[in-house]
Amino acid sequence: MISKPILTSGIRPTGDVHIGNYIGAMRDIIDLQETTDAHFFIVDIHSLTTHSDETSLAKRTIDAAKLYVAAGLDPHKATFYTQSVIAAEITELATYLGMVMPLGELLRCPTFKEKAKKHPDHVHYGLAGYPVLMAADILIHKGELVPVGEDQLVHLEMARAIVRRFSAHYGPLFPEPKPVENQSARVPSLTGEGKMSKSDGKGTTISLKDPKEVIEQKVKRAYSDPLRTHKVKPGHPTRTGCNVFHLHEYFSEPEEQQSIQTGCQTAEIGCVACKQMLATSIERTVVPIRQTYEQLTDADIHDLLLMGKEKAKVSAQQTIQEVREAIGFYMY
Amino acid sequence: MISKPILTSGIRPTGDVHIGNYIGAMRDIIDLQETTDAHFFIVDIHSLTTHSDETSLAKRTIDAAKLYVAAGLDPHKATFYTQSVIAAEITELATYLGMVMPLGELLRCPTFKEKAKKHPDHVHYGLAGYPVLMAADILIHKGELVPVGEDQLVHLEMARAIVRRFSAHYGPLFPEPKPVENQSARVPSLTGEGKMSKSDGKGTTISLKDPKEVIEQKVKRAYSDPLRTHKVKPGHPTRTGCNVFHLHEYFSEPEEQQSIQTGCQTAEIGCVACKQMLATSIERTVVPIRQTYEQLTDADIHDLLLMGKEKAKVSAQQTIQEVREAIGFYMY
Ligand code: SF4
Ligand code: SF4
Repeated sequence: MISKPILTSGIRPTGDVHIGNYIGAMRDIIDLQETTDAHFFIVDIHSLTTHSDETSLAKRTIDAAKLYVAAGLDPHKATFYTQSVIAAEITELATYLGMVMPLGELLRCPTFKEKAKKHPDHVHYGLAGYPVLMAADILIHKGELVPVGEDQLVHLEMARAIVRRFSAHYGPLFPEPKPVENQSARVPSLTGEGKMSKSDGKGTTISLKDPKEVIEQKVKRAYSDPLRTHKVKPGHPTRTGCNVFHLHEYFSEPEEQQSIQTGCQTAEIGCVACKQMLATSIERTVVPIRQTYEQLTDADIHDLLLMGKEKAKVSAQQTIQEVREAIGFYMY
Repeated sequence: MISKPILTSGIRPTGDVHIGNYIGAMRDIIDLQETTDAHFFIVDIHSLTTHSDETSLAKRTIDAAKLYVAAGLDPHKATFYTQSVIAAEITELATYLGMVMPLGELLRCPTFKEKAKKHPDHVHYGLAGYPVLMAADILIHKGELVPVGEDQLVHLEMARAIVRRFSAHYGPLFPEPKPVENQSARVPSLTGEGKMSKSDGKGTTISLKDPKEVIEQKVKRAYSDPLRTHKVKPGHPTRTGCNVFHLHEYFSEPEEQQSIQTGCQTAEIGCVACKQMLATSIERTVVPIRQTYEQLTDADIHDLLLMGKEKAKVSAQQTIQEVREAIGFYMY
């Protein structure tokens, strides 16, 4: 039997995931549990770099875990845990990696510069070290594959550079992790501008937890073809012509898309009905997730994460032992 | 019974210690095992920041341990261990501390700037984080006292600042460690310029491991009163007048110092005899250390360090547990 490649992927400790995240990344990442030896972990340590603490970290962690399990993450297939349960191993590895990683490269990293500019009061040592800690997240399991969005590609490149430097000092302990680029679906914002993004405000995104009425309301207000001022006027049901039609492309069945296109172009279908259909399509995706999310108890999550913790711990401890030997500490 | 204050002090992993280090710091630091709950640890992790690997790290660690035990460190009184045996706890704590420590302060630190200038090819992330890791060394045992030379005072100030910042985020878990300043004996170099320092070359320092003949040879060549060109000419046996006399002040008995002073001023004693006396005095300090050092086996050191490891581990794990709770990770 050929063993599956080891994959690692971090999950932010928040249950606040919108359908743009889901279609654009979450769903595909979860699917990787079928074809890889996937390690999914909630990045509760990374989250400390920003000190966002409206809700307690533990609560946000549990909530994120529920949502991912509801969205299909199967802790029997993937190793599912929180970063902090192997904090000792990850941070130790990160410390050694940080001793071969040039500071200058970290300070030149575009994501660091951007964050530093946005939050000048939070430019802590740990913020600059984010790519090092991320490398440790991967290497602690000798990860070979990492799903990355465009914005994370630079971090993966740094992880690869860290591997090369570490190998030069201490020998070839780690493989250079490779990116799994996702299909980069860019689900549009309800406002019609750019892709759906949390930073544009609640009204512009649809959460996986939104109830039916909220989804309907939000879709009703969505930006559509600005040229279709009256129902009798034909619309432009294309990706760029109508935002609502663009959303249909992600959530509606091909036949439905076809009939809307025709109906809109012939002015047989109105925007109100079209939006109602979109809301129904989105619901088709969201309902099963929302229902499972609501059924999962804290105790369920506890048991599922505990299973992953044991597996992650074994793997992490083996790696750190090898690293200590390679460095040459006096061990007793 | 009032408990003794907790003291922490790092030891560099090298058996290359000269009598200037010994009189200037080592001896006094070891003495603190009598009055404090001392934690002495060999900083094998810190040593990675400089990548000096002529001899294997493990060998250098054992050698340093032998020399300190020979010089009086009593592992039954102090907790004596190597930093790497609690690497997991220290580096984890350092990671959390690094998330409240402004990067700018680390980059402005004079010791960092100096090292960065000296070794521009080794300016790694970990080098900038040295004060953070040092703070973790102290705080992992809730250290209250830290012996520091002048050059380390700035790092202790940073550790104190880190404690205040951590407390502001997560509550008052740590005391602010205070310095124990040593008597700052500045044993002069054999060359007569500045204090004895390894960086001036082997001939200018006397190692705790130097055999009798080597000590005699080195002292014979030591710089003395430049105005005493002939034995018949009286000398200037003061701290600034004669380097050899200055060394007598650290190694010879008061009566001996007195008789040399008189003899030199009256030209009754010559520099050759005076230096011979200094060599004998230095031997008085060095012989017992060198002998014990040579008798200690690797197995002895193994057993002594193992004892300290157990104690250090208990203390470190308790602290890290409290830290994780204070941060608010989901624990399971
Ligand atoms: S009917 Fe649908 S596709 Fe056509 S313009 Fe209205 S919202 Fe857009
Ligand atoms: S006799 Fe001793 S103290 Fe006097 S000048 Fe010579 S070395 Fe110095």
